[in-house]
Amino acid sequence: MDRDNILLTPGPLTTTLRTKLAMLKDWGSWDTDFNALTARVRGELLDILHARDSHVLVPLQGSGTFSVEAAVATVVPRDGHLLVLDNGAYCKRMGRLASLMGRRTTIASRSEEAPVDPQELERLLLEDPSISHVGLIHCETGTGIVNPLAEIAEVCERLGRGLIVDAMSSFAALPIDARALRFDALIAASGKCLEGVPGMGFVFIRKAIVDGCAGNSHSLAMDLHDQHAYMERTGQWRFTPPTHVVAALAEALSQYREEGGQAARLARYQANQRVLVEGLAALGLQTFLKPELLSPIILTFRAPEHADYDFKAFYASAKAQGFMLYPGKLTEVETFRVGCIGAIGPKEMQQAVDAIARALQGMGVRAAAA
Amino acid sequence: MDRDNILLTPGPLTTTLRTKLAMLKDWGSWDTDFNALTARVRGELLDILHARDSHVLVPLQGSGTFSVEAAVATVVPRDGHLLVLDNGAYCKRMGRLASLMGRRTTIASRSEEAPVDPQELERLLLEDPSISHVGLIHCETGTGIVNPLAEIAEVCERLGRGLIVDAMSSFAALPIDARALRFDALIAASGKCLEGVPGMGFVFIRKAIVDGCAGNSHSLAMDLHDQHAYMERTGQWRFTPPTHVVAALAEALSQYREEGGQAARLARYQANQRVLVEGLAALGLQTFLKPELLSPIILTFRAPEHADYDFKAFYASAKAQGFMLYPGKLTEVETFRVGCIGAIGPKEMQQAVDAIARALQGMGVRAAAA
Repeated sequence: MDRDNILLTPGPLTTTLRTKLAMLKDWGSWDTDFNALTARVRGELLDILHARDSHVLVPLQGSGTFSVEAAVATVVPRDGHLLVLDNGAYCKRMGRLASLMGRRTTIASRSEEAPVDPQELERLLLEDPSISHVGLIHCETGTGIVNPLAEIAEVCERLGRGLIVDAMSSFAALPIDARALRFDALIAASGKCLEGVPGMGFVFIRKAIVDGCAGNSHSLAMDLHDQHAYMERTGQWRFTPPTHVVAALAEALSQYREEGGQAARLARYQANQRVLVEGLAALGLQTFLKPELLSPIILTFRAPEHADYDFKAFYASAKAQGFMLYPGKLTEVETFRVGCIGAIGPKEMQQAVDAIARALQGMGVRAAAA
Repeated sequence: MDRDNILLTPGPLTTTLRTKLAMLKDWGSWDTDFNALTARVRGELLDILHARDSHVLVPLQGSGTFSVEAAVATVVPRDGHLLVLDNGAYCKRMGRLASLMGRRTTIASRSEEAPVDPQELERLLLEDPSISHVGLIHCETGTGIVNPLAEIAEVCERLGRGLIVDAMSSFAALPIDARALRFDALIAASGKCLEGVPGMGFVFIRKAIVDGCAGNSHSLAMDLHDQHAYMERTGQWRFTPPTHVVAALAEALSQYREEGGQAARLARYQANQRVLVEGLAALGLQTFLKPELLSPIILTFRAPEHADYDFKAFYASAKAQGFMLYPGKLTEVETFRVGCIGAIGPKEMQQAVDAIARALQGMGVRAAAA
């Protein structure tokens, strides 16, 4: 059997063997040992944001989107009004799930090529006092752009509106400090920059608001207030937890600490990003975003403008060489994406760049000089 | 390190090492190999119910309860009326989630000591033509009782009402044949009698109704019509799938076939049940249900009537000997539960009986002669 392919995707991603080996045990979901594991994971997640004093941490079964929907359902009252700052596919998804569940929703759509604008937010909030909550995607995975979380949080706090942050792709890699900025909810998941396996999300909810969230959710499964209250009372998840996924996350968190936490993880992803951007630039491939807007999480590249370029063939060639790329998610420009995250370093990224070069050559797409 | 404890719980349960080893690989969720894995799992699940002609199979991230909620949200129209036949905790949960999401819900609560009654259902349906759907728990895990699925399905079909079956604990062990009975939705999960790991559920939806389910769900994450339509179009899950859980389920399904499918699995669980019931009867422990109502899935035993009996101490002693029991879920009678399911046979069950005997002796609870 070959070495497993390296996933250059924004989750699921490549995890360490040590993380996967943690799944070779069956845990009793009612048992005190598993309760202790859950408590440890919750505490360590709070530590990453320095949020033990300000927030509670509520884990939830399912993919990250389940946790985004649960956060909106739990935190935004039924008569609330959510403004979603939209510069990409995941922003649109948050708007869609909020309006589907019956919350009044306004989507402020802007270019995917620029971060959302705190000044524009201020204007929108002053114009419409009915807006109770603002939804922000921290790192929009559609393009990889990072939005200005601190500035947005400052506007929301000053104007007295709640803030819901989808930090799915940024959490644990980009710095976020709950002592320095205020948010009502922040969402991430096991299978992203923590380098666990997919299957659970989690939501930080501000302690000052959590009791007031009772009864907001129309959904039993997604009621994070109920999940939190039950967990505080019993130490257990309300419904069957993905025990093996939780165990893998606990092991991934240990490795996160051992690596040096957020700063070290960010440095590794930045090193990956440099190798990738410089390597593909030398092949004539340009990023979709301007250089100053690139994140160390995932990068969107413009497809080669060549008649013989075909993403499926490109993907198949890179895969045959051991690397899984990711399709673009933009409608108007042909792109492809490459993730910088996962249990890989610059060495693997250089191998990926070499494979991409060979894939382009194999398709007869001669890369232009950078 | 000791041998891992055996879980005598109704999921998560003990899985084979082979099933767990399938999780030692990271899959790309966009990749054709993973799409093929998903397609294979979906097809094999349909085969278990002989449902390829009549139903589609829609997998969903999260615990089994997420899939129950999704089935109700997707199949019952917003102006529908769900009657839940209630003889236990999971029946009550289905009623609660349906009413929370805004569906008109009637709960017909009866004794936990008897199966629900098809004749009573017929009377209720004739009395109230507004009831559009009936919710049934096939094996109610609260007590372990099995409800008469075929007879209930016959009444629903004859009177033209939809049927939603929570078959979480029975699927793949008790016989269910979609060619012989009609249901609109049937729900189960990865971590039960299929002996996979927890983290995903799945819903069989009748082909004749699936297109008409568009727009019923108030929840994006739980919209099984949307999940199904996307999967048919792309081969992919809408949102990040729990890739390792899916891989483990695929491996568990292979072992299910190799063992001999539903008949063989049922025979093993029945053998487990006989060893358990006879062994505990010899210790003076009686089942909560009458003998003719016992299921081979999970059994509820009355706690010993002895001043020195304490469930926590009993549990701790059995755990120290290598076996995880399960607490009772009845409010009026003190009970404990023991699961017969998982990758164990009569040999392990005899070991468990011996451990239970020693645990009772250690607490000074002398077991009366049977």
